[in-house]
Amino acid sequence: MSTELVVPPLAELRRRRSVKWRAFPDDVLPLFVAEMDYELAPPVAEVLREAVTRGDLGYHAPGPDLGKAFAGFAGRRWGWDPDPALVAPVTDVGVGVVEVLRQLVRHGEPVVISPPVYPPFFDWVPEAGGRVLEVPLAEGRLDLPALEAAFATHPAAYVLCNPQNPVGRVHTADELAELARLATLYRVPIISDEIHAALVLPGATFTPMLTVPGAAAVTIAVVSASKAFNLAGLKCAALVTAAPAMTRVVEGLVVEVSERTGHLGALASIAAYTDGDPWLESLIGTLAARREQLGSLLATELPSLRWRPPEATYLAWLDASVLGRDAQPRERFLYEGKVALEPGPRFGAAGSGYVRLNYATSPEILAEAVSRMAAVLG
Amino acid sequence: MSTELVVPPLAELRRRRSVKWRAFPDDVLPLFVAEMDYELAPPVAEVLREAVTRGDLGYHAPGPDLGKAFAGFAGRRWGWDPDPALVAPVTDVGVGVVEVLRQLVRHGEPVVISPPVYPPFFDWVPEAGGRVLEVPLAEGRLDLPALEAAFATHPAAYVLCNPQNPVGRVHTADELAELARLATLYRVPIISDEIHAALVLPGATFTPMLTVPGAAAVTIAVVSASKAFNLAGLKCAALVTAAPAMTRVVEGLVVEVSERTGHLGALASIAAYTDGDPWLESLIGTLAARREQLGSLLATELPSLRWRPPEATYLAWLDASVLGRDAQPRERFLYEGKVALEPGPRFGAAGSGYVRLNYATSPEILAEAVSRMAAVLG
Ligand SMILES: Cc1ncc(COP(=O)(O)O)c(C=O)c1O
Ligand SMILES: Cc1ncc(COP(=O)(O)O)c(C=O)c1O
Repeated sequence: MSTELVVPPLAELRRRRSVKWRAFPDDVLPLFVAEMDYELAPPVAEVLREAVTRGDLGYHAPGPDLGKAFAGFAGRRWGWDPDPALVAPVTDVGVGVVEVLRQLVRHGEPVVISPPVYPPFFDWVPEAGGRVLEVPLAEGRLDLPALEAAFATHPAAYVLCNPQNPVGRVHTADELAELARLATLYRVPIISDEIHAALVLPGATFTPMLTVPGAAAVTIAVVSASKAFNLAGLKCAALVTAAPAMTRVVEGLVVEVSERTGHLGALASIAAYTDGDPWLESLIGTLAARREQLGSLLATELPSLRWRPPEATYLAWLDASVLGRDAQPRERFLYEGKVALEPGPRFGAAGSGYVRLNYATSPEILAEAVSRMAAVLG
Repeated sequence: MSTELVVPPLAELRRRRSVKWRAFPDDVLPLFVAEMDYELAPPVAEVLREAVTRGDLGYHAPGPDLGKAFAGFAGRRWGWDPDPALVAPVTDVGVGVVEVLRQLVRHGEPVVISPPVYPPFFDWVPEAGGRVLEVPLAEGRLDLPALEAAFATHPAAYVLCNPQNPVGRVHTADELAELARLATLYRVPIISDEIHAALVLPGATFTPMLTVPGAAAVTIAVVSASKAFNLAGLKCAALVTAAPAMTRVVEGLVVEVSERTGHLGALASIAAYTDGDPWLESLIGTLAARREQLGSLLATELPSLRWRPPEATYLAWLDASVLGRDAQPRERFLYEGKVALEPGPRFGAAGSGYVRLNYATSPEILAEAVSRMAAVLG
């Protein structure tokens, strides 16, 4: 068993200047946005300190390092062997998805997404000129028959979220094989957002979409070290392809798209992918412990909330509809309980009455948050 | 007189991983891309080290800090008093220009630019759906009569570069007043790229476009600390407006555009704007000394090259047409002289036979580069 990761004292956390620690006043515990409270992976901290000492803050340099580092990581973790030359850096996952959609979607064409899902999915599609076509999850899983019906209307693309935020679902190899079959049959390109891939917890197995038989010809994956290593502010993600038709889409992007990659994001990602395994093992162990702790806390203190423990991510999707519909639970937990959670409706209509809780914190903060939430229910 | 800034030894510079130090082999002196070789401003290095130590690498937090810091800086340097609330962060200057153009330009509409100019100007316009309409500089200055003729055809926007890369020209208050008059008369919005504003050298005076009488109603400025403080890889710039019609354009951007700002870029920019004045004074003194040194070196060792010493920036625009047309001078300096410069034609057709040299380096490296270039001329 690896030891658990350290969370700095609350007073130290409050000196952070990222959105998690600046959006709410100090009497609120922030368990909303997907940032983690752990200290950085040592290889990441080291490469960043070195860059600062060297004044090395200029433009991201194109080159094979990021692709090679990602390929090594993907091989060790998932037995996936992507071609390093087909790992194309971008500013972040959102930019990657939007830029690919701009290539694939003509004005007003439908793009399918499966809510409840990360809120910007609803914005990325119109940002790229498309129109959202919702095919909601069914019982937390891809609704494959409904996806077939939608694909048969020839949408311009499908944006997959795997693992899926906020429900924490890791789609299975069989589900993804059927998705690939449908995408091929109806010629619907798949953009696979795999930002949470390295956060799969014990009990589930991640399947990279590009390893699914037949999927490569219709898939562009978007990957990033930013979620698992807490680097969102450094601005680095990558588009990955494995078949000429999809590679051509990526090659169609203007060169500025890759030049906009954050230099420190790339350096930190390379360090994380190359030397971050031990820290990541500790993180996974730590998050599994927090997931279990949350389960006990909910069972004893908040039994009227329902949840399915997530298979991946550090996000818990809680049915708090005993407190009301729409965003009412979030409002009550925030204003009465002083705990900031994400309001369920941001993730789609099915999120009415839900909240999303970020448990990537210390046992103490998690316990305090749940006890404040329990006090709201009285 | 402030003391000159320190450049680390060449062996240390070569350990940097940004594009300036990774694009060419070690036998080449890289004086091409606009990165500087100096050590970081101490307040910038300090805030970045703190963030790394705190694990503070999450999402950029919206808030007044960046706007306030920029307003303070603009007031001290240019007597400009922008409203901090109208300073809207974006990923970088390129993203800022492109996103604003997307709001202003319908498909295929012309957008005016004045080459020779920073190469991505030619790409940003089509990236946003527009078509480039060139109104070249005349003798290194804005060609106001030609701009009037172009504006009379009702282009969707004008993208101004002030100070202008690569010629180093600081457009005068009178020129900008006339530009504002024309833009108002013909209703052409101006996007004013002011990334080099803090790099105006002794002898010239910078006029922020938004301080020009009548300009605010038609102007969106794009500013950044990244060029003067060498932070390009951290991904932070800002859109600044001062009149409702232009503010509405910025407010029309999806929220993700500001969320994509680099967190460390924002922290470093705030530190630079707030506490960076002494370092910036030393930088300006250092660059003025290098400009003078370059003048002497060219006069004695490369008298057949012609130039107009820049009023701003650390970029020298050299007429090397004795070595041939198009990109031939750049090729010969690179392959025979082992000095990497920017090829003039990237900045527009008028750049045929030119090279752009980055002199933000040590006296020794500058002298070595010029002597290598002189050897090419034989
Ligand atoms: C599914 C998913 N995609 C993308 C992102 C954001 O990625 P980026 O900041 O790189 O756009 C998140 C953030 O939590 C996410 O959950
Ligand atoms: C005029 C001009 N605008 C913009 C940029 C690049 O800015 P950014 O990297 O923020 O897009 C440069 C870089 O040298 C420049 O010279």
